[in-house]
Amino acid sequence: MTWRSEKKAIAALAILWLLSVGRGSYAQDALASWNDGRAKQSILKFVRDTTDQSSADFVPPVERIATFDQDGTLWVEHPMYTQVIYCLERVPAVVTRKPELENVEPFKTVLSGDRDAIAKLSMKDLEEILAATLTGMSVEEFNEEARKWLETATDHRWRRPYTQLTYQPMQEVLEYLRANGYKTYMVTGGGQDFVRAYSEGTYGIPPEQVVGTAGATQYGYDKNGRPFLTKEPNLLLNDNNAGKPEGIHLMIGRRPRAAFGNSTGDQQMLEYTGAGDGARLMMLVLHDDPQREYAYGPAQGLPDTKVGTFTQALYDEAQSKGWIVISMKNDFKEVLRSDK
Amino acid sequence: MTWRSEKKAIAALAILWLLSVGRGSYAQDALASWNDGRAKQSILKFVRDTTDQSSADFVPPVERIATFDQDGTLWVEHPMYTQVIYCLERVPAVVTRKPELENVEPFKTVLSGDRDAIAKLSMKDLEEILAATLTGMSVEEFNEEARKWLETATDHRWRRPYTQLTYQPMQEVLEYLRANGYKTYMVTGGGQDFVRAYSEGTYGIPPEQVVGTAGATQYGYDKNGRPFLTKEPNLLLNDNNAGKPEGIHLMIGRRPRAAFGNSTGDQQMLEYTGAGDGARLMMLVLHDDPQREYAYGPAQGLPDTKVGTFTQALYDEAQSKGWIVISMKNDFKEVLRSDK
Repeated sequence: MTWRSEKKAIAALAILWLLSVGRGSYAQDALASWNDGRAKQSILKFVRDTTDQSSADFVPPVERIATFDQDGTLWVEHPMYTQVIYCLERVPAVVTRKPELENVEPFKTVLSGDRDAIAKLSMKDLEEILAATLTGMSVEEFNEEARKWLETATDHRWRRPYTQLTYQPMQEVLEYLRANGYKTYMVTGGGQDFVRAYSEGTYGIPPEQVVGTAGATQYGYDKNGRPFLTKEPNLLLNDNNAGKPEGIHLMIGRRPRAAFGNSTGDQQMLEYTGAGDGARLMMLVLHDDPQREYAYGPAQGLPDTKVGTFTQALYDEAQSKGWIVISMKNDFKEVLRSDK
Repeated sequence: MTWRSEKKAIAALAILWLLSVGRGSYAQDALASWNDGRAKQSILKFVRDTTDQSSADFVPPVERIATFDQDGTLWVEHPMYTQVIYCLERVPAVVTRKPELENVEPFKTVLSGDRDAIAKLSMKDLEEILAATLTGMSVEEFNEEARKWLETATDHRWRRPYTQLTYQPMQEVLEYLRANGYKTYMVTGGGQDFVRAYSEGTYGIPPEQVVGTAGATQYGYDKNGRPFLTKEPNLLLNDNNAGKPEGIHLMIGRRPRAAFGNSTGDQQMLEYTGAGDGARLMMLVLHDDPQREYAYGPAQGLPDTKVGTFTQALYDEAQSKGWIVISMKNDFKEVLRSDK
């Protein structure tokens, strides 16, 4: 091969590479499951502005942090948070191990299978169930139990594993941001260890990028001198509301450039993200699609439900601060990833 | 250009690329500041075994986590932890803000400048000084104060900024592991926010990969309604001893493949790392070089000092478990990065 043809080949390869990079980073169809509109355009503009070196809003790659709430933002949260279902379904196993709980409330009600009575359990009852099912075992035992359950349990409406109830458009946002150098973090009110059991396979988010409600662990040794960590009931981080920015500081140590949520539990995370300088993207998913998913608010006259409250006050704050409200009905071309 | 010459050019580029990858990943001189010996060979073998796809010990890239203690492992910790010096030197500024502390102990002793009296302060005194100088301000104010100090403060022996007292051979290990797909984490007993102020510039470790002793923060709003986080005195994680594996679980959620320390405060982190299956690398820096740095143990008859205790029991545990003891005197060809 002559030097001239080698140079040409290198130039051709370089052009192909630049084209493929260009296509990967900026193509509109990276968000193929979004209808065109303000929400989709805001995401595209944010990425363009923060990754184009000639832009006044350019963000160096190391500072590209995006945080996502999970329940109601990345996957279905109705009629009940998946982790609460997990805890309720683990109760029989806990009672087998500790038979003295069989006739003690709230375990007795859970064992009865009476869905109405279970729905009426108080927050204190739920906390007792969470403590009994999420703590007192080693980190490895918990992981194995959670993974086994996630493989077999299915929801009532779609009859699919819960990990197949993620929103295709939001999965595209995760992938699009990562393709543009963003580290994507989950910042969830759910249990950190529970979410870590499936976050990598389900969202491409590794365990070290999951910030969640977290309890302490206790280091100790088994009878063979092998060290292990036991999950303890004392809470280190309640990753809801003000706990979200506090958790972001604890676990990430940088203010996010973009934050996504769907309820009052995400309000402070979006405020904190928006208080930084330069380009920032704050988005809230509004569940206004009773046919394809669920409809609840109570913002904009949607039904008021217990799970994932999107108040009118939050809607008004979004309007006044320039946060983008994503209408599931209008902005999502597809809803569930598994429908594709 | 003919198709044949294009193919040749592509093949030539592919070979060049493979060679450059090969050279970057496996070259012995990635550890140029190490003398040849068991320590250096152990690092090279560990990386080879865990990154070669045909090896029985191959580790997928997502699971490549390496954790490093800081004080005495990555930089000089004698005669006093840098962060303690920072806190002592911040006392005058705190007293200016709160004049009522001027004649109150332990602040009075610190203000006196009497080094012997300061060296005799109790742990309770030190904790009071740490709380007064590390909490009660916003996260941003703290970062600015810490960065300003780090730019100007110098140590007494080398008369250089503290960030220039890092060990060149350990910097090479950090870079070598990263070049081979490892995420390098700091797991330090030092304050998480303090270390994050310089970890990226000094070690190439971003804030989100610093696990340290961490206090809570409190979310609130200033008079203009702008949200901010205040550093609070209540401790969430004491990242020493058993707190290290507990902190690793909280902040990373995976067991490390490699762990580096230098004192009894790192014992549990190395035990926890070593208790995983497959290839694992556990290393301890022994400070046995009074000429080029310091000599302290008390393992192997070295002087016993207050800071960074390497006991004979830890030395014996290392021997029995196959952990590698790095002799600063024999294994380090260079010591400080800034000496190069």
